Amino acid sequence: MKHIISINDFKKEEIDEIVNGGAEMIPYVNKKTLPPAAVLKDKPKVCLLFLEPSTRTLGSYEEAARLLGWPTRIVSGPEATSLMKKESFANTIRMFATQGAEILIIRSKEEGTARFAAEILEKSGFNNISIQNAGDGANQHPSQTFLDRLTILQTLGRLKNFTFGFVGDLKHSRTVHSLISSFTPEDKIQFKLVSCQETRLSPRYKRGLNILESESLNILRDCDVVYVTRIQEERFSDPLELERVKGRYKITKDVLDGWKKEVKIMHPMPYVDEISAEIRSDPRVIIDKQAWYGIPTRMNLLLWGNEHRFEKTLIPKMPELKKEIIKEAEIDQYLTSRKKEEKYFRPIRNGTVLDHLPFGTGDKIKKCLQTNKIFKQNNVIHNIERIPSQKLGIKDILVLENVFIPEHLFGLISFIAPQITFNILKDNKIRKIKAIVPEEISGVNSLPRCPNNLCITNYDPEGITKFKILQFPKSGENFLLRCNHCEREFTREEIIKII
Amino acid sequence: MKHIISINDFKKEEIDEIVNGGAEMIPYVNKKTLPPAAVLKDKPKVCLLFLEPSTRTLGSYEEAARLLGWPTRIVSGPEATSLMKKESFANTIRMFATQGAEILIIRSKEEGTARFAAEILEKSGFNNISIQNAGDGANQHPSQTFLDRLTILQTLGRLKNFTFGFVGDLKHSRTVHSLISSFTPEDKIQFKLVSCQETRLSPRYKRGLNILESESLNILRDCDVVYVTRIQEERFSDPLELERVKGRYKITKDVLDGWKKEVKIMHPMPYVDEISAEIRSDPRVIIDKQAWYGIPTRMNLLLWGNEHRFEKTLIPKMPELKKEIIKEAEIDQYLTSRKKEEKYFRPIRNGTVLDHLPFGTGDKIKKCLQTNKIFKQNNVIHNIERIPSQKLGIKDILVLENVFIPEHLFGLISFIAPQITFNILKDNKIRKIKAIVPEEISGVNSLPRCPNNLCITNYDPEGITKFKILQFPKSGENFLLRCNHCEREFTREEIIKII
Amino acid sequence: MKHIISINDFKKEEIDEIVNGGAEMIPYVNKKTLPPAAVLKDKPKVCLLFLEPSTRTLGSYEEAARLLGWPTRIVSGPEATSLMKKESFANTIRMFATQGAEILIIRSKEEGTARFAAEILEKSGFNNISIQNAGDGANQHPSQTFLDRLTILQTLGRLKNFTFGFVGDLKHSRTVHSLISSFTPEDKIQFKLVSCQETRLSPRYKRGLNILESESLNILRDCDVVYVTRIQEERFSDPLELERVKGRYKITKDVLDGWKKEVKIMHPMPYVDEISAEIRSDPRVIIDKQAWYGIPTRMNLLLWGNEHRFEKTLIPKMPELKKEIIKEAEIDQYLTSRKKEEKYFRPIRNGTVLDHLPFGTGDKIKKCLQTNKIFKQNNVIHNIERIPSQKLGIKDILVLENVFIPEHLFGLISFIAPQITFNILKDNKIRKIKAIVPEEISGVNSLPRCPNNLCITNYDPEGITKFKILQFPKSGENFLLRCNHCEREFTREEIIKII
Repeated sequence: MKHIISINDFKKEEIDEIVNGGAEMIPYVNKKTLPPAAVLKDKPKVCLLFLEPSTRTLGSYEEAARLLGWPTRIVSGPEATSLMKKESFANTIRMFATQGAEILIIRSKEEGTARFAAEILEKSGFNNISIQNAGDGANQHPSQTFLDRLTILQTLGRLKNFTFGFVGDLKHSRTVHSLISSFTPEDKIQFKLVSCQETRLSPRYKRGLNILESESLNILRDCDVVYVTRIQEERFSDPLELERVKGRYKITKDVLDGWKKEVKIMHPMPYVDEISAEIRSDPRVIIDKQAWYGIPTRMNLLLWGNEHRFEKTLIPKMPELKKEIIKEAEIDQYLTSRKKEEKYFRPIRNGTVLDHLPFGTGDKIKKCLQTNKIFKQNNVIHNIERIPSQKLGIKDILVLENVFIPEHLFGLISFIAPQITFNILKDNKIRKIKAIVPEEISGVNSLPRCPNNLCITNYDPEGITKFKILQFPKSGENFLLRCNHCEREFTREEIIKII
Repeated sequence: MKHIISINDFKKEEIDEIVNGGAEMIPYVNKKTLPPAAVLKDKPKVCLLFLEPSTRTLGSYEEAARLLGWPTRIVSGPEATSLMKKESFANTIRMFATQGAEILIIRSKEEGTARFAAEILEKSGFNNISIQNAGDGANQHPSQTFLDRLTILQTLGRLKNFTFGFVGDLKHSRTVHSLISSFTPEDKIQFKLVSCQETRLSPRYKRGLNILESESLNILRDCDVVYVTRIQEERFSDPLELERVKGRYKITKDVLDGWKKEVKIMHPMPYVDEISAEIRSDPRVIIDKQAWYGIPTRMNLLLWGNEHRFEKTLIPKMPELKKEIIKEAEIDQYLTSRKKEEKYFRPIRNGTVLDHLPFGTGDKIKKCLQTNKIFKQNNVIHNIERIPSQKLGIKDILVLENVFIPEHLFGLISFIAPQITFNILKDNKIRKIKAIVPEEISGVNSLPRCPNNLCITNYDPEGITKFKILQFPKSGENFLLRCNHCEREFTREEIIKII
Repeated sequence: MKHIISINDFKKEEIDEIVNGGAEMIPYVNKKTLPPAAVLKDKPKVCLLFLEPSTRTLGSYEEAARLLGWPTRIVSGPEATSLMKKESFANTIRMFATQGAEILIIRSKEEGTARFAAEILEKSGFNNISIQNAGDGANQHPSQTFLDRLTILQTLGRLKNFTFGFVGDLKHSRTVHSLISSFTPEDKIQFKLVSCQETRLSPRYKRGLNILESESLNILRDCDVVYVTRIQEERFSDPLELERVKGRYKITKDVLDGWKKEVKIMHPMPYVDEISAEIRSDPRVIIDKQAWYGIPTRMNLLLWGNEHRFEKTLIPKMPELKKEIIKEAEIDQYLTSRKKEEKYFRPIRNGTVLDHLPFGTGDKIKKCLQTNKIFKQNNVIHNIERIPSQKLGIKDILVLENVFIPEHLFGLISFIAPQITFNILKDNKIRKIKAIVPEEISGVNSLPRCPNNLCITNYDPEGITKFKILQFPKSGENFLLRCNHCEREFTREEIIKII
């Protein structure tokens, strides 16, 4: 893989390979000698673009590059902020590429930025840059997962068959999400999750894993490793909710002494008060060592990025439209047979009639067509709403005189109105077409947009949404889609609502 | 030349030499090899002092220094801002010099800072540093001009005989000012300028060039190159005016398709919306390539600065005073012959009488003399205003008992009151002197100051204004002067008004 | 010594050694060649953590590291500020250690941070890092003292037998404090201090030195060196007081011309207006040269830090308790003989009775015991106040049924109540104990805290106060203590008041 964007992009064996590669770097960190793979005639330029402050991850990558002897450029903190006031994110990425970036580490508040950066580079012909995601909002932070796994591997000697506790803000912690996602049921981990109701882990991360949940720290007594996280105050919109949650779980000496003797306490840092000062130097608390494993981990990621950065990763083409002509007839003949419907609108002889639209979707489709500049000055458009329908109860019909919709929009329109019939009237013929909703829905000219306000596609003028349909509706169930950038999941209703 | 401060300091052939030197760097950037000229035993320390944020120019200089293998120090962004709260600009420059700067790249909001920095270094005995101006407010940004010219040279193959369009904020864009100033009528460029009334190019940049102006984009149809600039919102004081101007000109796909097939679109970046997202990756839009040319350009400028940094550039002495003694006589004899005027003031026998001062300038001259601490505790000063005068209608006379004005102030005083007569009474003699207004007026103890509030001389306690007289008054016309630092032009009235 | 934290840690001959080491670096700075001692297989990583802005000291250290060819990491300005919002200072220090710091230069607003950093590193097992204090609030700035001394040595040729003037804010300037502290009476310096009443040097810095004080600049006429400092506006809480002080002393050309011909003017910079612009380039004003000496000084400090960074500096154990059993008896027998006192409290047979507590200290001691979690749920505590006492007038008695105080708290309690008797009742015996107040009082669980609000121990959850007793009370005098971190001095009352 060319980029390191999301832990979800990696197969289990790739994750293992990267963690083991990190382990191989450890002696070079300890001895401060150059790993042979780092000795290159052309040392890659490592650029660190930190649009959200993070001295920890930044310093760890910086030290990793230094130990490899590779040059760095750092744009970080308020300087990066003022940069973003003037430039779009896409242009910022192109600027770094223009100015010689070869491995580009990105942290940002917006979600999906690393993936978007990779797309922009490909679109703009910069083909030799590896993007590495150093945290995009609440979404992903893959290098943290690699270092967490390396910490466990080096400490327990294995990444299987142990009892693994988590405590704190399991709802908002991307670190927890990615780490748990990196395990499979075959790893035979007993997970024990402690959190209050407001900060529970979302069910999407639980699938198939052996998980015990509780609001009490007591269940952690027999854990081999306990992963503590801070309450992510900045992600709470309700101050009362935050108040209920803050300071709820604290690991004190008394608590720790009640647990398994050789338990190891991990924490991605920074912590607020969930690790008590009295145990900060306790040998069971391995958070400094954990942070240290970030260095060999990131050395390996830099080497890995440099090795793979010339790979091609073509942006996948949209899947081809699957459609079916369900009827073809002469217009005159057809109109004669359809007398009844004439009361709703004047029949047209040239153009498109979209039928079987769920009530309310006629306007949404019209809006999409407008944004795509399908209509010309003199096109007459009727949207007839609330027409009685056998299938739908009531429906909309959209009549577009002299308008023909380009086929690349059929998929999106079918997603908005899954039971649609496209009636195309041309050359005295009518053709009725059904299109099959494709596996991927792509935003065209920014519609539909991603319902996640923090998704990068809502920030950059060049952002184009793409949703993968995870689940097609069967017997009453609804579509479930995942945004390709921020990786959040949405229903069809949530997406259509904001068109 | 030792410094790179203003494009106006360079002769045409020097500009060409520098652009060609940039072209020679291109293969070294592409192959990432060291240019032989960069391989030095003593690599110069390149300091980047960015008092106004600019990641683009900063990153380009940084990459240029890296490709030369030269060390850099960067002070930029809010850190630079907080620096300026505590230190004067002059002291900041001395600090960088003290701490080993050998090439010092400066960006600032205040105008004239690069030139002022060069003066301070010379005054303080730092003789081996080359200053390079990376943008001083709305004034100069010479490296941008060099890279723009390199872009055209590499793209069109020539810097002559083509049609060159400009669109946007031609009034405030220093980039446009410098680029247009770098061409001469001999280059046979057909310029086509598109802007609305509020953002027109000032006539001072047009002299002799072949220029067509319009408010309509239509005139750009046959251009070989079109240079687009953003509206510089921060330079507008009137929000209504800004509103009329913003978003007026946008280069969309429709617009672009109506132009010459092989047109090239340039833009100094950042852009707001004047380059539409839909054409961002269009091959006619060469703004990424243009930015890239900043790297070979600045590599060459760094080499150039290092080569010339030991040159001497003595701050020019003030031109010597040209004066004429028009009358010399015994005081008694003189007083007898001048009985009439005694009604205005008691005759003095020792001191200076300044006569033929235009009404109102007596007080201005007195203020200048006071600031220069010419007066002692017991000096009696009369300023007699509104005396009838044949030449001037009414005039002021300034009588300074026991005061003798040092000659270095004669030039400034003559500029304030061009028809002045200096009457010097001493040792029982009177001498009437006329001084000729010199070609350069220098501020002494901060008077006169530059009318441009953004000029560095209004910010630094060590700032000394200097005005070059571009035009002496002939038959009713007025003096036209140019500030040596901010390079803005003023009339005599504008300068005198704020004494 | 491993760290460079406070000039007070150094013996006179160590100071001289370091200043001379700085002098040896001068030719390497001038010729830009590597000092042989800097050529190492393992170059140490120099980290600059500037939590308060300082481009001057930062740039000087940065240039020093560059001239040694050693790698640097810089975290400074607003980035450092945002860092401190998220991490405790102790964790920030550990982070730098984890990420490879080997010499760690620290500047901060809080006082005592450099010493605290050294303690945290030792406590956390990071044993190969040298801490260097680049200024901690109003406390210490040792490298400035070394460079000031180097400046005088190079300029006068000696550090003895001269007349040394100081003018400005002598109360708040740590630079002045440290510089004066570095001299002894044997150096035969005639000090002349000029300041107004509000900004006088504290008597603690004057001991034994030959000092003349005045509010008039006149006394400086015969000085060989005059050290000027700015008014530290940020340290004034009363704006009226500040107004009286600001702009009071200005060194103008007139002033300077009245002084010894070969006088040298020094200033640590930045200055406001106390050095007039007209003398800025005067050869008597050697402030640029002084700043320049920062570079060889800090090169030597970096070499010195690297050489000593593996030294062990065990945090000194608390001195052992010195106690005396003054009486031992059977409880029954004792109670019989003490009938009288029963009216104040019900006699206990198991636990501790603290007697002879000065009125008001009973509650303070109770608070200390509570913070240390000495009391259990069912312990009955009586504090009887205002009991008539022969020795104390009135006194408190604290009766702690079934409570036994651990001995490590005896010293602190004896400090709070110096005439205390510990009555320990156990196994039907009573033992009366007197403890001797030890030379060092340490805060346990943050009591007592340092009365200086800017002391780092009041900022970091892991901060533990420690006070050295400078002076034991003799005949009516009080204890005088010095905080180990911020180095400020306090009386016993000041410390007890805020328990």
